[in-house]
Amino acid sequence: MLDNFSLGRHISGQFNAELESIRTHVLAMGGLVEQQLADSLKALHKQDAELAKRVIRDDHKVNSMEVAIDEACTRIIAKRQPTASDLRLVIAIIKTITDLERIGDVAESIAKVALENFTNKQYNLLVSLEALGQHAVRMLHEVLDAFARMDVKAALKVYQDDDRIDREYEAVVRQLMTYMMEDPRSIPNVLKVMWSARSIERVGDRCQNICEYIIYFVKGKDVRHTSPEEIEDILKLS
Amino acid sequence: MLDNFSLGRHISGQFNAELESIRTHVLAMGGLVEQQLADSLKALHKQDAELAKRVIRDDHKVNSMEVAIDEACTRIIAKRQPTASDLRLVIAIIKTITDLERIGDVAESIAKVALENFTNKQYNLLVSLEALGQHAVRMLHEVLDAFARMDVKAALKVYQDDDRIDREYEAVVRQLMTYMMEDPRSIPNVLKVMWSARSIERVGDRCQNICEYIIYFVKGKDVRHTSPEEIEDILKLS
Repeated sequence: MLDNFSLGRHISGQFNAELESIRTHVLAMGGLVEQQLADSLKALHKQDAELAKRVIRDDHKVNSMEVAIDEACTRIIAKRQPTASDLRLVIAIIKTITDLERIGDVAESIAKVALENFTNKQYNLLVSLEALGQHAVRMLHEVLDAFARMDVKAALKVYQDDDRIDREYEAVVRQLMTYMMEDPRSIPNVLKVMWSARSIERVGDRCQNICEYIIYFVKGKDVRHTSPEEIEDILKLS
Repeated sequence: MLDNFSLGRHISGQFNAELESIRTHVLAMGGLVEQQLADSLKALHKQDAELAKRVIRDDHKVNSMEVAIDEACTRIIAKRQPTASDLRLVIAIIKTITDLERIGDVAESIAKVALENFTNKQYNLLVSLEALGQHAVRMLHEVLDAFARMDVKAALKVYQDDDRIDREYEAVVRQLMTYMMEDPRSIPNVLKVMWSARSIERVGDRCQNICEYIIYFVKGKDVRHTSPEEIEDILKLS
């Protein structure tokens, strides 16, 4: 599907098709990463070793997509010499796929934790990750949706949602700390759950990065290191 | 200083000067990040609150440099339409500064830990971070040096060094876990030290990323997700 933001602007229909193809690949990569993250969490909660192994095995697909899209971006810059918003799109894509690839790594590391042996009691701790994990998957889904439509309003909404993930994460950490203090022998295993919680919290940060790239593409403004209030102002003004 | 890798290739002396200026800015940013990281570790070990506060205050400088260099890169692509190795240099720079900025964030977070109150006994734990931290600072220094000279051999050496940081990190984690098990009340504070250890270990990963960009620029080959042995082969072959 060609969206109106890229349609009809280029004399070269071929250039248009190339840009659109890259964009489609980014969305496919995003879809795969979302699947990997959801599957890794499912593997953790259901203690499904087969699913965990598949996530680990499939991480290389995410990596290959990153490398291929990066190559396509460099090729299109060299060949088509894009300027203005076309160039911003390519730059936004180069940055977005870096974050997507790292979210893929998070899925892989959660899948590795899913392969660990937990006692029944420790297993209960994994439940505390469930809400946090589902929240992160939803946030990723929404930012990919915002990316597909290059919708800055949707991007801003996702951006602001990260606060909630941060609060959920802190609650999980407090709970895990209490557990460690009560049963010090559990510390090594509980730490693994804690690393996973932290990785999931980082997925939220990476989704925020992607929001910034969407705003950069659409508004031509680099909003990194800008407060959420300032970002809102920028979106209102333009 | 103009190095032979960029000298004399461009019809436009102006283009050359622009590329060189960006490269100089990256090195300045790298120097600042290295200083921030070293200072944050010093603040932690000496429990120097003033120094810690300065690191936190100065993080915005790193952020501004990232944004400014990114802008300069986009501008040079739009205006000069670089191809081949010039384009690879610009792409390598765009990626390098992302990693440098994140290392700056690590320095900031370590500085925040330096502001915490530790008991004398817990303070001893910080000593275990010293070797790890100094190792990371040295690795960063060396990768920036390799970047300045675009020296793939030096980059490969840094790349291989990350294994040692990983091993040191694991030793630190084991030590901290033992401490937590012996004194469960210390868990919240020891966890902060552990987060710092993990952040420092990640600095090694980010230095490895920069090594990959150096190899990408010089050899025109994307070596991400490639084993160290394969990378060595690539460097031998070409």
